[in-house]
Amino acid sequence: MIKPLQKKNNLSEAARQDKQLINERLEKYLEVRYPEVIWEAMRYTTLSGGKRIRAILMLESMRVCGGNIENALPTACALEMLHAQSLIHDDLPCMDDDDYRRGKPSCHKVYGEASAVLAGDALLAYAPQVIIKHTPEAISRKALLQVLEEFLKAAGAEGIVGGQVMDIQSENKKIDTKTFNYILNKKTGELFKFSLRAGALLAEAPTKQLDALTSYGEKIGYAFQVADDILDVTGSLQELGKTPGKDSRSGKNTYVSLYGFENAEKKLSDLCRSAHQILENNNIESALLQDIASYIYQNKNGFRI
Amino acid sequence: MIKPLQKKNNLSEAARQDKQLINERLEKYLEVRYPEVIWEAMRYTTLSGGKRIRAILMLESMRVCGGNIENALPTACALEMLHAQSLIHDDLPCMDDDDYRRGKPSCHKVYGEASAVLAGDALLAYAPQVIIKHTPEAISRKALLQVLEEFLKAAGAEGIVGGQVMDIQSENKKIDTKTFNYILNKKTGELFKFSLRAGALLAEAPTKQLDALTSYGEKIGYAFQVADDILDVTGSLQELGKTPGKDSRSGKNTYVSLYGFENAEKKLSDLCRSAHQILENNNIESALLQDIASYIYQNKNGFRI
Repeated sequence: MIKPLQKKNNLSEAARQDKQLINERLEKYLEVRYPEVIWEAMRYTTLSGGKRIRAILMLESMRVCGGNIENALPTACALEMLHAQSLIHDDLPCMDDDDYRRGKPSCHKVYGEASAVLAGDALLAYAPQVIIKHTPEAISRKALLQVLEEFLKAAGAEGIVGGQVMDIQSENKKIDTKTFNYILNKKTGELFKFSLRAGALLAEAPTKQLDALTSYGEKIGYAFQVADDILDVTGSLQELGKTPGKDSRSGKNTYVSLYGFENAEKKLSDLCRSAHQILENNNIESALLQDIASYIYQNKNGFRI
Repeated sequence: MIKPLQKKNNLSEAARQDKQLINERLEKYLEVRYPEVIWEAMRYTTLSGGKRIRAILMLESMRVCGGNIENALPTACALEMLHAQSLIHDDLPCMDDDDYRRGKPSCHKVYGEASAVLAGDALLAYAPQVIIKHTPEAISRKALLQVLEEFLKAAGAEGIVGGQVMDIQSENKKIDTKTFNYILNKKTGELFKFSLRAGALLAEAPTKQLDALTSYGEKIGYAFQVADDILDVTGSLQELGKTPGKDSRSGKNTYVSLYGFENAEKKLSDLCRSAHQILENNNIESALLQDIASYIYQNKNGFRI
């Protein structure tokens, strides 16, 4: 059963502490170096707001599996850098052409297109360096390399890039369910899934636990995108931090445009319920993971931590 | 002393064999998957010609240090993918806006800007995956992680991206020698240097040998760019495979525009001579490394293998 709103304060406190830890670490990793302009552009999107939900999920996955979150922090920060990279490139005029992101002008509006392309490249190259350089030696070669490989896979043609390519190719076209699910899973689901897997992998969790966390990640990743599609219709610029109604106007296929508003609400509810069920069936005791699923469901009008 | 042209046939044969090996492996690593369009765009620039000089240098560095070139091939191919990524993004309209590359229309002219941005991202994310996935287990954790970290550093804000950012920022401006050298070393030098270091690192060569190969790489990397600047003035589209005179017309700072044609020729000669000297002083016996330095010097009118 989806948890009621009374959990809100607890979630906020635990999540806020993790968020602060992640922001402090990101600030440190992204210290400005020469040439300053590129580091400033990298910092601009990465450090300007953001819910840090992916990084928080990773830290919690590590905790749930009995690992030390210090070992997870470099990868959690890398995840947020990768997420920022995908936002910077997605917002470019030749892609989704969006002038606002996280309530502020997009990276290319501030630094110009060339620097925005390069800031994205720089984040994509820097994020795995952070994992390599800062993950403690205590993590085994096998676990570290698997995390790195899955991270890079999620970033590339078999992950976010694959989803974005198909999304662009499908604009103003009728697409089948298989293609729609591919786009949604790759564009949004992949990083959520990775967040959960990365914690379990670095903690060297048993396969059963890894698989359960993977399934939970898939459910909430899908749910997060459905909620975003609902918000695209109902939200304001202030609530969203990006241009509302943009996806539907630009001929993007969204869950709402394909299946209607009511079905989207039902799907969202089903997915969050399944996420809870997975936790319960696998004896994964985590108030934070439970609450995040509830939150994604309840906060269709803007996820806030 | 710079070796005379009679070495040409030997160089061509040894280099041609390595080039073939690299091309076969690249073809295998870049097998087309779903979504096809992104893999085709990734293949288009990576597999359409290219001298493979960086990959050849890496294999030779591995040989010189007594390593097995099978252990170097994944990284050598990753190097060529990274080089292709930087060409795709550099050619974009918002960057250097070049319609030709390697004698064919640039990636964005064939696949459109959005797919070209994404193909670059996909190559940047895929190249290190190739290193992780295909480098044999015999390579130590330390060596593998150092190669990966240096590879990513060369790709990002402290490497190619840093050089490209400063290059764009400096267009139509008078810059000092320090800034010019930074741009040249980062944009071109970094990958040459890495090619030589990567072979030595994977072979776990002694520090002295690693340092000597690093210095040799720095010299020929710089020389390669000076030769390219000379070619920008003297070459034809057919010889260059890209638009001639582009850099000087677009207000780019080149060695020729800053120091004049004669000084550029002298610098080129000095650098190649120093590269030979480094090999001799450190007892590095490699006809291929000697010949590549000679070739960069002698083939100002177009490097051919």
